Amino acid sequence: MLPSMDSILHDQCRLEFTRPIVVAVSGGPDSLCLMDILRQAGYPVIVAHFNHKLRENSDIEANTVEQMAARLGLPSIIESADVRAFADEKKLSIEDAARTLRYRFLFTQAREHKAQAVAVGHTADDQVETVLMHFLRGAGLNGLKGMTYRTVLSVFDVDIPLVRPLLDVWREETVVYCAGQGLRPHYDPSNDSLNFLRNRIRHLLIPTLETYNQKFREAAWRTAQSLTADHEILTQSVDVAWTRSVVSESDGLVIFDSSILTGFPLGLHRYLFRRAIERINPAADITYAVLDRVTSFLQNGKKGGALPLNGGIRLLREANQIFVVGEAAVLPFERWPQLPTDADVIPLTIPCQVELPGGWKFTCESWNIPALALEQMQNNEDQFQVWLDADKLEGGLSLRIRSDGDRFEPLGMEGHTQKLSDFFTNEKLPQRARERWPLLCAGGAIAWIPGYQPAHPFRLTKASRRILYFTLTSPAKKKAE
Amino acid sequence: MLPSMDSILHDQCRLEFTRPIVVAVSGGPDSLCLMDILRQAGYPVIVAHFNHKLRENSDIEANTVEQMAARLGLPSIIESADVRAFADEKKLSIEDAARTLRYRFLFTQAREHKAQAVAVGHTADDQVETVLMHFLRGAGLNGLKGMTYRTVLSVFDVDIPLVRPLLDVWREETVVYCAGQGLRPHYDPSNDSLNFLRNRIRHLLIPTLETYNQKFREAAWRTAQSLTADHEILTQSVDVAWTRSVVSESDGLVIFDSSILTGFPLGLHRYLFRRAIERINPAADITYAVLDRVTSFLQNGKKGGALPLNGGIRLLREANQIFVVGEAAVLPFERWPQLPTDADVIPLTIPCQVELPGGWKFTCESWNIPALALEQMQNNEDQFQVWLDADKLEGGLSLRIRSDGDRFEPLGMEGHTQKLSDFFTNEKLPQRARERWPLLCAGGAIAWIPGYQPAHPFRLTKASRRILYFTLTSPAKKKAE
Repeated sequence: MLPSMDSILHDQCRLEFTRPIVVAVSGGPDSLCLMDILRQAGYPVIVAHFNHKLRENSDIEANTVEQMAARLGLPSIIESADVRAFADEKKLSIEDAARTLRYRFLFTQAREHKAQAVAVGHTADDQVETVLMHFLRGAGLNGLKGMTYRTVLSVFDVDIPLVRPLLDVWREETVVYCAGQGLRPHYDPSNDSLNFLRNRIRHLLIPTLETYNQKFREAAWRTAQSLTADHEILTQSVDVAWTRSVVSESDGLVIFDSSILTGFPLGLHRYLFRRAIERINPAADITYAVLDRVTSFLQNGKKGGALPLNGGIRLLREANQIFVVGEAAVLPFERWPQLPTDADVIPLTIPCQVELPGGWKFTCESWNIPALALEQMQNNEDQFQVWLDADKLEGGLSLRIRSDGDRFEPLGMEGHTQKLSDFFTNEKLPQRARERWPLLCAGGAIAWIPGYQPAHPFRLTKASRRILYFTLTSPAKKKAE
Repeated sequence: MLPSMDSILHDQCRLEFTRPIVVAVSGGPDSLCLMDILRQAGYPVIVAHFNHKLRENSDIEANTVEQMAARLGLPSIIESADVRAFADEKKLSIEDAARTLRYRFLFTQAREHKAQAVAVGHTADDQVETVLMHFLRGAGLNGLKGMTYRTVLSVFDVDIPLVRPLLDVWREETVVYCAGQGLRPHYDPSNDSLNFLRNRIRHLLIPTLETYNQKFREAAWRTAQSLTADHEILTQSVDVAWTRSVVSESDGLVIFDSSILTGFPLGLHRYLFRRAIERINPAADITYAVLDRVTSFLQNGKKGGALPLNGGIRLLREANQIFVVGEAAVLPFERWPQLPTDADVIPLTIPCQVELPGGWKFTCESWNIPALALEQMQNNEDQFQVWLDADKLEGGLSLRIRSDGDRFEPLGMEGHTQKLSDFFTNEKLPQRARERWPLLCAGGAIAWIPGYQPAHPFRLTKASRRILYFTLTSPAKKKAE
């Protein structure tokens, strides 16, 4: 009657005979059946009953479970809590409050008793109801695949798994099993109340659907099985894609290579970013809508940009990288030249060498014209070096960070100035790189934006007599991308 | 109102402006909307109307469509057929018969007019109904993902695609569109008949589900979108797995390396074998149950074996290969030594060289004992060569195929004989290799099974005076696996 239970306990739930299993026993036919199957199969069972104190008979039921466990020689733990008060306090439905307190109790006991798992009596009918609820809600594969034999509910415990050995067993079969074993389940009258969505689905919707397909329950159960297998394949694909596309992962930060992401199907993006968000903040509520915003952000924004998401997480795009950034993340700045956080202005003497964070080095020296042809210096293509007219650079040289209202006369745009912030925006320099970008200034005016271009007034001309040569080099000697 | 239609026509349906599109126009709001959107977007539309002749007004409706097309300057094709007669003849429901004849008509016209595609007006509502029907039936991902913007119905045409540009548009929106464009759709009264499953789903079940989730239709539509993306990822995984695990593919035959299959998740097996079966026989009906039998066969049978499937297809297991074999397949025998089909017995002279199919060669020669130490010959480990006692080999030497009741005295089992068929079974030699396996016989008795062992009576002993040396070699000189 109970199909291939040994294999489910051993292969699917991965239970061992050596360590105890905390079995959630309400006293209904499902949980009694589960308890007895595990006991008869030789697993060390600890009966755990949570008295919700929501019904008149709840104390009697708790006693019954305790006595039954004692009669079978099983240890039992009975606990109760004020579900209504907790629901009021946390603004939860009675159902959600009961569930939260019950699972807390089960996993606390599991830890205390060094149990290998918490086992619950969800049946094939529960599976069908779950799949149907997800279907009504518009869930994706992850919901439609239903419950799994073995899972970790990290909200309650990150190590001890929850196992559901009865997912292949119909509720009716557990009733027959209990009758056959002389176990007397009690029946929860709240299961019949149509106030609860799950009960309406059980007592009204499923019978309706059975008028369309007499074997609807078997069909939905099979759908769950089949989608579980699909989900397993998908998870492997996501693993492979993750390895290929994640550039780095650290506390609160995952960086993707967006050029590699581009080669993946759209659906993979959802899975990759779901995983990234979950790793950064397991409590973030990742809805379909959130992932929709992520994929639009990936597809549409070609430039830089930022997208705030749930759970304090945001996306940043920088060149060909996508950052998934949590609240605690320390973003890597080593790719850009930046002034140290304790030095907004660094006065320069000539010659000089200034060490900047991340291995960047700024140098300045005097040159005589004959050292290089004028044209060569004018047509310089390395934007991390520049030759300027020393006689124009008046009022004291410094490296400084930007300040409000900074303007700049681009090369070749005589008499026309541009806001520094607009210049950076045009150049798609990420916002967070701008704050401490080093600017070479003469008496406050910007003379050179290292990595970009010199200001027109300070450029080298035929009339120039004295020259200053500036460089900004990184260990990698690359232009900031 | 009609969301991002340009992108759907261009990116999803992949329509071009240069070649005509055969548009299926029933005259209802969906198809009129589709026709007009394509026309206004500048695509070369051919209006195709199939008159099912099932209703009183069907001729009038056909005329209306023809006139409307003429008024808009579009070419039109009207055709009718006797749907009822076809349904009776083929034992189909009226719905199925109508669909088959209609699609035949559409694709025939598409070929004749060198059209790039056949376009049909399936809407978001049709999508929801389709998904729901699949869900009720217990479909897997492939069904639950719903209809696609562009697909090939190979039953009707292997080249010309079917496109569905309105999958994002709700039926109500097409009504509004037609009103706005001054198009007058007619309404098919059979759409209201609750005799058809689809109509019951539309008019009864969906409104019921909307009492559970007011936005059920949007939810189901989103499920289809999300599962379509998942399906795309899966298909890529299957592509990769196919390349890795398929050893060879030819007409009616796909050979998998089962040791590579073992490393894949269970779900992938289903997809790989579904693909193999579809390639061999596109008409084979591959249900979940069929794939279940395939996966059990893969998991359980460790030895050889065969499993007949639908559509004249069977699975064979041989060593570490799984064969998916269609009716027309020619199985590869080149791996085994086999007697030619026109020679059940080949008399041998000494010395001799016999060429066998697939490059195998049988040789026989006389040896003098001093040529090799006796022990070396006795402890020979190459099972494709043997030294036998010439004085025991009486009654004429031959190579022959097995015959009923063949028995054999294994080496070291003096006085005990074994059925040849049992011997082959123990050795896991595939059934189909046994039929023409060459046996060295002396006067009818089996003296050596090349590739395995000599028979005890013919072995070399210290008393042996004359020796015969036999070899069977393949070009690869490998033991048959």
